[in-house]
Amino acid sequence: MEGGDHLAHERKKAQFDVEAMKIVWAGSRHAFEVSDRISKLVASDPAFRKDNRPMLSRKELFKNTLRKAAYAWKRIIELRLSEEEASKLRFYVDEPAFTDLHWGMFLPAIKGQGTEEQQQKWLPLAYKMQIIGCYAQTELGHGSNSSKWWPGGLGKISTHAVVYARLITDGQDHGVHGFIVQLRSLDDHSPLPGITVGDIGMKFGNGAYNTMDNGVLRFDHVRIPRDQMLMKVSQVSREGKYSQSNVPRQLVYGTMVFVRQTIVADASCALSRAVCIATRYSAVRRQFGSQNGGPETQVIDYKTQQSRLFPLLASAYAFRFVGEWLKWLYTDVTQRLQANDFSTLPEAHACTAGLKSLTTAATADGIEECRKLCGGHGYLCSSGLPELFAVYVPACTYEGDNTVLLLQVARFLVKTLSQLGSGKQPVGTTAYMGQVEHLMQCHCNVQKAEDWLKPAVILEAFEARSARMSVACAKNLSKFTNPEEGFAELSGDLVEAAIAHCQLIIVSKFIEKLQQDIPGKGVKQQLGVLCNIYALFLLHKHQGDFLSTGCITPKQAYLANEQLRALYSQARPNAIALVDAFNYTDHYLGSILGCYDGNVYPKLYEAAWKDPLNDSVVPDGYREYIWPMLKQQLRTARL
Amino acid sequence: MEGGDHLAHERKKAQFDVEAMKIVWAGSRHAFEVSDRISKLVASDPAFRKDNRPMLSRKELFKNTLRKAAYAWKRIIELRLSEEEASKLRFYVDEPAFTDLHWGMFLPAIKGQGTEEQQQKWLPLAYKMQIIGCYAQTELGHGSNSSKWWPGGLGKISTHAVVYARLITDGQDHGVHGFIVQLRSLDDHSPLPGITVGDIGMKFGNGAYNTMDNGVLRFDHVRIPRDQMLMKVSQVSREGKYSQSNVPRQLVYGTMVFVRQTIVADASCALSRAVCIATRYSAVRRQFGSQNGGPETQVIDYKTQQSRLFPLLASAYAFRFVGEWLKWLYTDVTQRLQANDFSTLPEAHACTAGLKSLTTAATADGIEECRKLCGGHGYLCSSGLPELFAVYVPACTYEGDNTVLLLQVARFLVKTLSQLGSGKQPVGTTAYMGQVEHLMQCHCNVQKAEDWLKPAVILEAFEARSARMSVACAKNLSKFTNPEEGFAELSGDLVEAAIAHCQLIIVSKFIEKLQQDIPGKGVKQQLGVLCNIYALFLLHKHQGDFLSTGCITPKQAYLANEQLRALYSQARPNAIALVDAFNYTDHYLGSILGCYDGNVYPKLYEAAWKDPLNDSVVPDGYREYIWPMLKQQLRTARL
Ligand SMILES: Cc1cc2nc3c(=O)[nH]c(=O)nc-3n(C[C@H](O)[C@H](O)[C@H](O)COP(=O)(O)OP(=O)(O)OC[C@H]3O[C@@H](n4cnc5c(N)ncnc54)[C@H](O)[C@@H]3O)c2cc1C
Ligand SMILES: Cc1cc2nc3c(=O)[nH]c(=O)nc-3n(C[C@H](O)[C@H](O)[C@H](O)COP(=O)(O)OP(=O)(O)OC[C@H]3O[C@@H](n4cnc5c(N)ncnc54)[C@H](O)[C@@H]3O)c2cc1C
Repeated sequence: MEGGDHLAHERKKAQFDVEAMKIVWAGSRHAFEVSDRISKLVASDPAFRKDNRPMLSRKELFKNTLRKAAYAWKRIIELRLSEEEASKLRFYVDEPAFTDLHWGMFLPAIKGQGTEEQQQKWLPLAYKMQIIGCYAQTELGHGSNSSKWWPGGLGKISTHAVVYARLITDGQDHGVHGFIVQLRSLDDHSPLPGITVGDIGMKFGNGAYNTMDNGVLRFDHVRIPRDQMLMKVSQVSREGKYSQSNVPRQLVYGTMVFVRQTIVADASCALSRAVCIATRYSAVRRQFGSQNGGPETQVIDYKTQQSRLFPLLASAYAFRFVGEWLKWLYTDVTQRLQANDFSTLPEAHACTAGLKSLTTAATADGIEECRKLCGGHGYLCSSGLPELFAVYVPACTYEGDNTVLLLQVARFLVKTLSQLGSGKQPVGTTAYMGQVEHLMQCHCNVQKAEDWLKPAVILEAFEARSARMSVACAKNLSKFTNPEEGFAELSGDLVEAAIAHCQLIIVSKFIEKLQQDIPGKGVKQQLGVLCNIYALFLLHKHQGDFLSTGCITPKQAYLANEQLRALYSQARPNAIALVDAFNYTDHYLGSILGCYDGNVYPKLYEAAWKDPLNDSVVPDGYREYIWPMLKQQLRTARL
Repeated sequence: MEGGDHLAHERKKAQFDVEAMKIVWAGSRHAFEVSDRISKLVASDPAFRKDNRPMLSRKELFKNTLRKAAYAWKRIIELRLSEEEASKLRFYVDEPAFTDLHWGMFLPAIKGQGTEEQQQKWLPLAYKMQIIGCYAQTELGHGSNSSKWWPGGLGKISTHAVVYARLITDGQDHGVHGFIVQLRSLDDHSPLPGITVGDIGMKFGNGAYNTMDNGVLRFDHVRIPRDQMLMKVSQVSREGKYSQSNVPRQLVYGTMVFVRQTIVADASCALSRAVCIATRYSAVRRQFGSQNGGPETQVIDYKTQQSRLFPLLASAYAFRFVGEWLKWLYTDVTQRLQANDFSTLPEAHACTAGLKSLTTAATADGIEECRKLCGGHGYLCSSGLPELFAVYVPACTYEGDNTVLLLQVARFLVKTLSQLGSGKQPVGTTAYMGQVEHLMQCHCNVQKAEDWLKPAVILEAFEARSARMSVACAKNLSKFTNPEEGFAELSGDLVEAAIAHCQLIIVSKFIEKLQQDIPGKGVKQQLGVLCNIYALFLLHKHQGDFLSTGCITPKQAYLANEQLRALYSQARPNAIALVDAFNYTDHYLGSILGCYDGNVYPKLYEAAWKDPLNDSVVPDGYREYIWPMLKQQLRTARL
C-alpha cells in the first residue's frame, strides 16, 4: 500500500486552527484530553477490535461482547479510571452491551426513585458490578397476559431488574410503580423460580444491537420483599397501606431530562461520525468532469454533493452545542429541584423531549444520506455506515417514540399560549412566546442575500414562524367543543408546530454559543458559517412554513437560498479540517472510506479478500448446484 | 396460539370489492392469476423457506442461495413454466442471486448490443444456463490501474461477463465498449489464466445482498477473440480497423429505458410490501387512549400515524400505475426504434431516469418510515422491515446514482425550454411546457377545500409549479457566460426543478388511470381517494415550491391540508382491504407484524425462542466473563 497522507492537500486548505476547534468540539481542554487519551487507549488495544463483527454468528458476537465488557471493566479497575474516564472508555468500545443499561438506566432509576436507604443498599453493589441490572418497562403487547419485551441486558445477563408493574393493594390498583426484582441466581446464573426469561431474537444489521441481549420476561407467582418497591415517591407500609410522600411526582421528569440529554449528545456523535466518513470520502472520490485529460472532479466539489453534505456537517455541530446546553439545563433543573423549585421543570421536560425527537430523527436520516453520498461503496460493511445506521435508528423509538414526544411538546406549546392571557410569563425556551403580539405582525426586512447573515434576522424569522404556527393551531383547536377531539384531529399540524419550535431552539443555542468568547484563529468564523448554513438550510427546507405564515416573502426565500450557496463555497476548503476536529480515531470511525489518510482503494481491495467466501476459489456449493445447472443435469440432481 | 382472523373486523369495513382491486393492482386478470399461482407455489414449498436467513453465516447463506437458484431452475424446467411464470417465480423466491444479473443484465446487454450473429451464438447458451453471465461496468476507483468492482454474480459464480473497457486500436482510444469475456473454466470453474476474481465482502444487512457474490475482477494480459466485442454499434475488422455502423448510438438508451422501467415496477412492490406490514400492524397495535377501561386505541386511528402511513399507501399505488405506463412507454419506444424513429427517445430516457430516481428514493425512505411506524417491534428482524430496507436501498445507487439522474432530467428540461423559441414542440411528458406562457401566469382558483378534489385543478397547480421552477432555473442560467459553470453552480435548484417535473408525471399518470374504465364496486372511488391523497400530500410537503412560485396562496395551501385530513378519514376504513389487494402471501411478506391473520403477539413470542442465544439458559461466556465480574475476580481472570 502506498503510504502518506492522501488528504494532505485538503488539510492545507483549512482557514482555521484545527487544534483549537478540537477543544471547542470536546467542550473543554480537559474533556478533549480525556477523550483523546481514552480513545487512543481503546484504538491501540487489539482486544477491542471490531472490524470482524459482520462475520460473527449471533452466539460468537454475543460472547465476544461479554469478553469485551469484562475486559473493559478489568482495565477500568487496573488503570483506576475515574467515572468520567470509564464512561468514555465504554463509549469508545462502541458496542451495545448489557453494561449500557446497567450504568445508563438501572443505576439512575435507583438513584432517582429509591429512598436513601434503598440507595445505600443497592448502589454500592451496582457500582462494583456485584449485581448487574436492567430496566424493564416495555411490554410485548397489551392486556393483562403480556410479557416484558425489549429490555436490554435482560435476555441473558442481568441478575436484577427494575421492573415496572401495577401496584395493587387490598384489591386497589395504584398504577404503575418500579420494583427491584432479582432475576437470576448469583451463584449459577439460573433464573429464579417462577421466572421465564430469554432473548427476543435478531435485530436490524449484522452487528448493531445483536451484541445486546434484549429480553423477554414472564413472572409466574413471583414474590419480592416489600422493601424492593422503589419508594421515594410512594410507599406501602408493612401493613399493606399505600401512601404518597411529599416529594412531587414530577421528580421522575428529572431522570427523563437526564437520559434524553445524553441521547441528544449521542446524536451529535453518531451524526458527526457519519459526516466525517462521507466528507473524507467525498474528497477522495473523483467522478466525471475531467477536462483536457486532467484528473476527474472530486465529488465534494459538486454543488449537489455540498448541498446534501454540508447541512449535515452543520447539524452535527448544532446538535453538539445544543447537547452541551442541555447538560447545563439538567444541572440547573437538578439544583432547582433540590431547592424545591419545580417551576422550570415542565418547560425543561418539553424541551428535552422535543430535542430528543428532532436530533435523533435528523441523525438517523443523516447517516443514511451520508451512506448514499458515498455511492456504491457506502453499501459495503467496510464503509462503517450500514452498521452505524442499524445501531442508531432505534434511538428514534426508545425513550419515547419521536412522534409521541412531539405531541407532548405541542401540548405544552398550546398550554403556554393559553396561559398568556392569564399573565403567566413563559420561561426558558418558550420566552419568545411572550412577544407573541410582535411576532404575529413583524416583517422580515431582508433586502439582499447578505442580510440573511445577521443573527437577529434569522432569530426573528424562526421565532415568528414558530409562534404563528402555534397560534394557528391554538385558533383551530378553539373551534372544537371537545378539546381532546380537536387535539387528535389536528395532531398533524401540531407536530409541525412542535418541530418549528424545536428547530428554533437549536438555531438560537447555536447563535448563543457564537456570542461566547471562542479562542483560536478563524474558529469562530468557521462556526459562524456553519451556524448560518444550519439556519438557512432549515429555512429553505421548510420554506413552506415561512411563506404560508407570511414571515418572509418569496423573494427573501430566494435570497436565503442564494446566500446558502455562497456559504457552501466558504465551507468547502475547510470541510476536511472541520471533520478532523471531531478527533475520531480510525478505530472509532470503523470505516475504510473515512480513514484519516484517505488511502481508500488499496484498503478496500485488501479487506475484500478477507471475506469467508474468498476462503476458496471455487465456492462451497458449486459441485452440488452450479455444475449440474451448467451441464444440464439438474433433473437428476438432488437439491 | 389462538386461531381465527384477528383483522376480520377491519376487513368487514371495506367499502369496495377487494377481489376487483386485486386485478387492478396486478394489471390484468391474467397477470393476477399467474402471480397468485406462482406466489402460492413458492410459499408452499419448504425449499424456499427464508425466515432462517438472519441466522446463517455468510458462507451458509450463499450456499443456500445457490441451492435455491438451482432448485428454482429445476422447477421451472419440470413445470415447463413460461418466461413470464419463470420470472415471477424468481421474484417470489425473493432473494438476490447471480441469476438476477444473468437474466436482467447479461442477456439484455447481448440482445441490445450484440449483432445478429453474436446473438445467435450466445443467447441459446445463456437461455439454457449452459453459461452464466454478469455485467461488469463499475470500477473500484479511478486511474488506469483500477479493478472492476461491484458486479453481481461476478465474485464466485459467473462463467462469463459483459465487460466494459476502453477499446484501443493502433494506439488510438475509441472509448468504452462492451466485450463478452469468459471468466471461468466450464469444467472445473477455476478462473482462466490472467484473471483474478473474488467476492468484495459483506454488505448492509443480515441477509439482503449478502446472498449475492458482488465481485472484484482484475485482468493481467487477457486476450479475447475479436468477435467477442459487442458489435451492433461499432466494429473492429480482422485487420484492426475501427468503424461505426449506421445504427445510432442512442440505441443503448433503449436498454436503459427497459432496465429502469423494471426498477420502477420493483419500487412499487417493495413499498407496497412495507406498507402492507405497517398497515396491518397499525390495526393490531393498541396504545394509550383507553377511556373508561375500554380497549386502548388502535394506533392506525391516530391522525399522526395516518398522515405518515396513508401517503405511503397512496404512493405504492401511484408507483404501480406509473410503472405500468412505463412498460407501455418502453414498448412504444421499441416499436419506434424499429421504424427508425428516434424522436421520442430523449424524452423517454429523461422520463425513466427521473422516475427511477424519484420512486427508488421515496421507496427507500418509505420502508424505513414503515419500520418506524411499527415502533420497537419494527426493529426486530422478524418484522421483515430491516431486511427489506437493507436489500432495497442500493436501488438508489445502482443503474445511475439518483442525484446524477436528476441532473440529467434537469438538463433535458432546460434544453426543452430553450428549444421552445425555435418552435420545437415538446412531446410526451414535457408536452405541458408548450403551454408555458399560460402556466407562468395562471391562478389557482380553489376557494373551498373540496375544490382540491378536481383533477384539472391539481394538474394545473403541478404543471405551473414545475414550469415555473424550470423557467426560473433557465433564467438564472442565462446570467452565466459559461453555461456549464452556471449548471454546476445552480445544480441544487435544477435538481428541485427535476423533482417537481417527475412528481407531475406520477400525479398525471394516476389521474389518467382514473379516466379509464375500472370495474368493481367502489374500486374507482377508492383509487380516487388515493390519487388525491398522493397529490395533496406532495403539495403539502412541497408547499414551499407552490407558494414561492405563486402557484397557490397560503389560504389554498391551508385548504389542501384540510382536504387531506378528510381524505385520511375516508381511507381509514379501507386501509386493510387496500393492502390485502396486493395479494401478498405471508411467505413473500416475510413479516410476523404483517401476517394476514393479525395474530402477531403469540407468533413473536414463539419466534423469539428460536434464536441461537436461547439454546442454553445460561449463555456461552458466562463462566469466563460474567461470573468473575460478579465475584470480583477479574484481576486474576484471563480475558
Ligand atoms: C433497541 C431497543 C432497545 C430498547 N431497550 C429497552 C429497555 O432497555 N427497556 C425497556 O423497557 N424498553 C426498551 N425498549 C422499548 C422501547 O422503549 C419502546 O419500543 C418504545 O417506547 C416505543 O414503544 P412501542 O415499541 O410500544 O411503540 P408503539 O407505541 O407501539 O408505536 C407504534 C406507532 O404508534 C404510534 N403511537 C403510539 N402511541 C401514540 C399516540 N399516543 N399518539 C400518536 N401515535 C402513537 C407511534 O408513533 C408509532 O408510529 C427498547 C427498544 C428498542 C428498539
Ligand atoms: C448492490 C449493488 C449492486 C451493483 N451491481 C452492479 C453490477 O452488477 N454491475 C456493475 O457494473 N455495477 C454494479 N453496481 C455499481 C453501481 O452501478 C454503482 O455503485 C453506481 O453506478 C454508482 O456509482 P459509484 O458507486 O461510483 O458512486 P459515485 O459516482 O462515486 O457517487 C458518489 C457521490 O458522488 C455524487 N456524484 C457522482 N458523480 C456526480 C456528478 N457528475 N454530479 C454530481 N454528483 C455526482 C453522487 O451523487 C454520490 O453522492 C452495484 C452497486 C451496488 C451497491
